[in-house]
Amino acid sequence: MHDDTIAAIATAVGESGIAVIRISGPSAIEAAAPYVRAKTGLKDAATHTVQYAKIVDPATGEAVDEALVTVMRAPRSFTAEDVVEISVHGGIVPVRRVLDLLLAGGGIRLAEPGEFTRRAFVNGRIDLAQAEAVMDLIRSKSERAMKVALKQVEGALSRKIGELRQRLIELLAHLEVNIDYPEHDVEELTSAFIRERSGEVLAEIRQLLKSANEGRILREGIMTAIVGRPNVGKSSLLNLLAGTERAIVTDIPGTTRDVIEEYVTVSGIPLRLLDTAGIRETFDVVERIGVERSRSALTDADLLLIVLNRSEPLHEDDRTLLGQAAGRQAVVILNKSDLPAKLDEAEVRKLLPGTAIVPMSVKEGLGMDELGQAIADLFFGGKLEGGEAAYVSNARHAALLKQAEQALVDAIESTDAGVPIDIVQIDVRTAWERLGEITGDTAGESLIDQIFSQFCLGK
Amino acid sequence: MHDDTIAAIATAVGESGIAVIRISGPSAIEAAAPYVRAKTGLKDAATHTVQYAKIVDPATGEAVDEALVTVMRAPRSFTAEDVVEISVHGGIVPVRRVLDLLLAGGGIRLAEPGEFTRRAFVNGRIDLAQAEAVMDLIRSKSERAMKVALKQVEGALSRKIGELRQRLIELLAHLEVNIDYPEHDVEELTSAFIRERSGEVLAEIRQLLKSANEGRILREGIMTAIVGRPNVGKSSLLNLLAGTERAIVTDIPGTTRDVIEEYVTVSGIPLRLLDTAGIRETFDVVERIGVERSRSALTDADLLLIVLNRSEPLHEDDRTLLGQAAGRQAVVILNKSDLPAKLDEAEVRKLLPGTAIVPMSVKEGLGMDELGQAIADLFFGGKLEGGEAAYVSNARHAALLKQAEQALVDAIESTDAGVPIDIVQIDVRTAWERLGEITGDTAGESLIDQIFSQFCLGK
Repeated sequence: MHDDTIAAIATAVGESGIAVIRISGPSAIEAAAPYVRAKTGLKDAATHTVQYAKIVDPATGEAVDEALVTVMRAPRSFTAEDVVEISVHGGIVPVRRVLDLLLAGGGIRLAEPGEFTRRAFVNGRIDLAQAEAVMDLIRSKSERAMKVALKQVEGALSRKIGELRQRLIELLAHLEVNIDYPEHDVEELTSAFIRERSGEVLAEIRQLLKSANEGRILREGIMTAIVGRPNVGKSSLLNLLAGTERAIVTDIPGTTRDVIEEYVTVSGIPLRLLDTAGIRETFDVVERIGVERSRSALTDADLLLIVLNRSEPLHEDDRTLLGQAAGRQAVVILNKSDLPAKLDEAEVRKLLPGTAIVPMSVKEGLGMDELGQAIADLFFGGKLEGGEAAYVSNARHAALLKQAEQALVDAIESTDAGVPIDIVQIDVRTAWERLGEITGDTAGESLIDQIFSQFCLGK
Repeated sequence: MHDDTIAAIATAVGESGIAVIRISGPSAIEAAAPYVRAKTGLKDAATHTVQYAKIVDPATGEAVDEALVTVMRAPRSFTAEDVVEISVHGGIVPVRRVLDLLLAGGGIRLAEPGEFTRRAFVNGRIDLAQAEAVMDLIRSKSERAMKVALKQVEGALSRKIGELRQRLIELLAHLEVNIDYPEHDVEELTSAFIRERSGEVLAEIRQLLKSANEGRILREGIMTAIVGRPNVGKSSLLNLLAGTERAIVTDIPGTTRDVIEEYVTVSGIPLRLLDTAGIRETFDVVERIGVERSRSALTDADLLLIVLNRSEPLHEDDRTLLGQAAGRQAVVILNKSDLPAKLDEAEVRKLLPGTAIVPMSVKEGLGMDELGQAIADLFFGGKLEGGEAAYVSNARHAALLKQAEQALVDAIESTDAGVPIDIVQIDVRTAWERLGEITGDTAGESLIDQIFSQFCLGK
């Protein structure tokens, strides 16, 4: 339990209707009370009630802003501590003014990134995997990724991991007994039990690992480049993709100002489009840009959407492009399929064998479902719906699962090789510990520090 | 009273701890209820209570996000209607997902910009001047501007305007009687009354107008350019200004990506610094940039901060710069005053007579108060504190006050010229109406449309 009180702006910063400052700590209500002038004093306010208040400077009695102030008493809050949420007018200056005032008194300090969620973790309200999922949820770029994250926030993965650890701890208990009271025939039975129990858990871990790649894709989006000659319809395709479901354009911090990534979804699959600025520009200044830019996008993308104009014969540049795409994950889009076909589809098939070819009319909005299916075939084994399964969407979790997998493989191999049980037991314990690091049960302080430092401020 | 239910994201959009969706309307609680799964159903929830809930898709029963849901029943809410606020995980996708879900049902529509505040106005909770002040508060760029806006939200200007209108309505009532029952000696007395009452109101309007320029400056900041030769300390000054109180850097929409404005305050006076990118760049690539850039900033700024190096003799470029600044609002900063003086202050005084000269050591952080005072002398007649007076900070209000002023001047002049009272009465009525447009009492629908359309979404 922490004994200090922390505060931070919990909403995004910008001009907006409202902004919320969150205060948490065992003394949050006492610490916030002097700044809040309301009908019912904060200390007397019942939990989960809201009231209109003036935020005042206790030194001068001067009102700094009007606000709605919510009190949530421990343990019924996000952090499981006393929480006060102050909802003030949005805008950069007003919300900072109120925060600065709260911090100036000395009773409240600025929260570190992720500190609210960390407290929820330390106070046992959520485990580490759930805490990480909170950030995944916030950062999700598609509805599907959000669903996966929400399931994880709700504890789907944590429950699964808990189950596997329970099975391993039973195995470990059995091994302990065997080490303390070794008898030959018991040892035989024990070897069988190690194989069986480790094998079961191993199978489940492998099942989870299978979902990890899909989880990563859902979380981060498929790095996608739309490539093709000028005027084949790249920017129209971009607009169509952006239009069907709402596109998100983000400035990625740390990159140059020119690089803009755009997130779109096709049949619920998130695509992270590369160099959309280049594509949009091409639309305007076709001559100047040419295919040069497309070539550089080729090297970075996980998925190439190669756009050809079906109403024209294959151009030499098209052939070059198809040649360069050999061995890459790609879908060939035959655009302008509403016009008479002049393109030799057989030649495309020969140049890029095994690659899906989807006729589309971007202009008429035709072929989107087929495009979505082609992408799902490439990245999700054809299944479009993830279902209710626990997903692994976090790289850290995947790495720990891989370590646990290896430890169990070692345990089984050692057992088969007749290695003494007290040695085998070490592998089983390693697997149990690695799984525990996912939920935070066996995670060290420095790992926890590192995880929460990646959170955004105010969470 | 509106009969439909509106919703919008009320917080700024971005990755954040939480985001809030506000729903308002006479049926807000009924409309939101199907989407909220909580211990106490929304319809039974007491006003001003918060509860943990799952946001569900009523079609599938599937949980879309977890949330804190607040109910505020009419008339005790921002809009004076039933309001439901849903606080969900921040982030672009989650909050949009919930909003899209709410809107898909048909019972709730997306709010227009400013529509919540408009409802607060239409329902009589606030007047037009207060509504506009809400936006000024959100957009305020300095603490002082925020204070002025807050006073206005609280109704300081509105009360003043109401008072003046009351005095004019008494005058109008008197004139009505006189028009209906004209008698000569009464007419004499009436003329005196017109002069006296109009004169009083006129004096107060002029007082308000005097505050308008200061109000505008407080609201928008003084457009300021820091100019000077390379290496005199421009970027250090910029950093000092930015460091003393927190600077706000904004990308202004609609301008090129390179133009960044930075807001800083000196003794509470907001400065809007032009071409800070240029200044920061100069710091790195002195040779390449030179004084060229400074020259273009010269033409746009309301205030020039001319930085000279006091530890060197006046340079030819300094003389050129001082020559160009003639007739402009400027403060000359003699930087590096911690070093022995080699600059001829008398020559500076001769080149730019009447301009304040402030010795500073930017490196040592000396001279800031004097700089603040020099700026206050230029823009605020020396007074740094605005006090408790009703401020006019809005251009629309200032324009209406000017029209009211003119109408009262006309009324007095007409009276003096012996114009019949029923004609004079028209001028008095005009003044009364113009003042009423400030608070919205006499504002037409199209004006109101226009004002609220400038609000941000979700307010």
